[in-house]
Amino acid sequence: MAARERLGAEVRGYDPAPAALAAARQRGAIDVACASPAQALEGAGTAVVAAPVGVLREVVGEALAAAGADCVVTDVGSTKRAIVSAHRDPRFVGGHPLAGAETAGVEHARADLFQGATWYLTPTQATAGVLYERLHRTIAALGAQPQAIDPDTHDRLMANVSHLPHVLANVLVAQAAQALEAEHERLPATGPSFRDATRVAGANTAIWTDIYLSNRDAVIEQIDATTRRLADVRDALERGDAAAIAAWNDAARGDRRRLLEVELAGETVHELRVGVPNRPGVVAQLALALGRAGVNIVDMALYPAPDRSEGSVALWVAGEGPADRAARLIAELGFPVARA
Amino acid sequence: MAARERLGAEVRGYDPAPAALAAARQRGAIDVACASPAQALEGAGTAVVAAPVGVLREVVGEALAAAGADCVVTDVGSTKRAIVSAHRDPRFVGGHPLAGAETAGVEHARADLFQGATWYLTPTQATAGVLYERLHRTIAALGAQPQAIDPDTHDRLMANVSHLPHVLANVLVAQAAQALEAEHERLPATGPSFRDATRVAGANTAIWTDIYLSNRDAVIEQIDATTRRLADVRDALERGDAAAIAAWNDAARGDRRRLLEVELAGETVHELRVGVPNRPGVVAQLALALGRAGVNIVDMALYPAPDRSEGSVALWVAGEGPADRAARLIAELGFPVARA
Repeated sequence: MAARERLGAEVRGYDPAPAALAAARQRGAIDVACASPAQALEGAGTAVVAAPVGVLREVVGEALAAAGADCVVTDVGSTKRAIVSAHRDPRFVGGHPLAGAETAGVEHARADLFQGATWYLTPTQATAGVLYERLHRTIAALGAQPQAIDPDTHDRLMANVSHLPHVLANVLVAQAAQALEAEHERLPATGPSFRDATRVAGANTAIWTDIYLSNRDAVIEQIDATTRRLADVRDALERGDAAAIAAWNDAARGDRRRLLEVELAGETVHELRVGVPNRPGVVAQLALALGRAGVNIVDMALYPAPDRSEGSVALWVAGEGPADRAARLIAELGFPVARA
Repeated sequence: MAARERLGAEVRGYDPAPAALAAARQRGAIDVACASPAQALEGAGTAVVAAPVGVLREVVGEALAAAGADCVVTDVGSTKRAIVSAHRDPRFVGGHPLAGAETAGVEHARADLFQGATWYLTPTQATAGVLYERLHRTIAALGAQPQAIDPDTHDRLMANVSHLPHVLANVLVAQAAQALEAEHERLPATGPSFRDATRVAGANTAIWTDIYLSNRDAVIEQIDATTRRLADVRDALERGDAAAIAAWNDAARGDRRRLLEVELAGETVHELRVGVPNRPGVVAQLALALGRAGVNIVDMALYPAPDRSEGSVALWVAGEGPADRAARLIAELGFPVARA
């Protein structure tokens, strides 16, 4: 819907379930309902695969087989290592928009769903720069904030800020249910703290089983870290160590404040021009380096030289400080860079 | 304020800090500012001690010493075993209203703070029946729901539904802060799940250090139970046991539903998700429309989109019929609505 409304794109859809396809057509999410991936992707410039993580490898493979040489293929799965390592095609860029709700199905589609949302992209050394640039621009045009990240970092990050909170919510409700039953007590009419902490408990099982399993080593690491932290708190409690408990709680207060103080104000956007060889992986390398440094690329444009061997990339970065940092980083990578 | 407004009671106050006493007088929380507990309690029928858990034993002792033979003395501390075992006086009944917010100080006092809130009371074998009955009726008259509970059960219950969620919120923010720093990553502009899960992280350190320590054996038990549950999930992940993960997640979903259901004496609580523009008046419009139709909103949560222009509201409504009615009404108002 966003692609149709904001980009004026023709959107062709394919779904193995005819009812879903008809609903998408009726909802205005697609212009044309197609009978196969091949039909949907004939002449397409961008292909977006939205499928459960468990079948993503296969479906992205189908899309790559059906897509032309000039078509960028991306997905919207919640974990990225497995799918990215499965498809080393220059046309494939993994993606993960952080948007949506517990609701499922095209009837909940909204053209503004991605407005302001972080949309992770995982380009690799194999990625064609021109296709990555197209995808980046397309996603920015949908209203989202594309951000390059390597698949390992993405999956660790998600294990930390998403999968672990889901695990803990599940544990909390299970533990409370068992305890209340044992005590023959009801959940008291409290303030919303317990509800807030357990809001995501028991999220869609089909989706989340895939997510947990496709990211299980990272989730296990997070669980182990939590177990160690719980052991530390337990020790302080057992010792009756008020100073340690107070310091731990104060640190959490500071951590939360710092974590949530990440809002971007209306900062000036600066343009950087970077000279690059026109080969796969270069744009990915730049995007990843800036992503790692916390520099948000507001927009980018690729300008290949006529013979396509060399070119330049224009990057727009918000804020004087981040722009300076970006220029320094790019220079350190060995690329000529100029402030436009 | 509730006692003055709803019961027409004369409320006399004492506080060791003269400024707090003056603020209470100015705010209309008390009729008379007194220079000592003895002066405040002369001829009083009910005494309420509001002091940090760490000094509660001493302050309740002062109140009991100052109060007459016909005065019931209660407190509002968050843990109950320590204070109840310290004072086996027939006039003392421990209390714990589940109300309030992170705000502190009499300037945040509201006459309706306790409306509908569970207010635990911990009478013992020693408690004078007539005094307990007076306290129960007084608390009900303030608008709260008095509920008797033994101190052991209370403290275990609170360890489970309140203290453990606070511990886990602290652990989550600390772990995320450390991980993001190590990765040079920022917290992504996600949906509100991480925020929800960590809303209570780093709550008032002075208050919470006392709470954790006064209830440390129960909190340690809860931490141990969580550690065991995390170990089980970890094992299932390590085995790649999709069936076990799915069953665990389904159980959590059922547990959460049952936990929120039992609160309402039998009626099933239904969740509605409503897409709304994020502007003043919309939530009020929804609440008023449902209120007019006699639909009771058990709970609600607002989920703004990252750019805060749009969002969704989750509404929990008790009963199948009311939930249907609510969904119809909301759709008639022009908002997209889905049953979760």
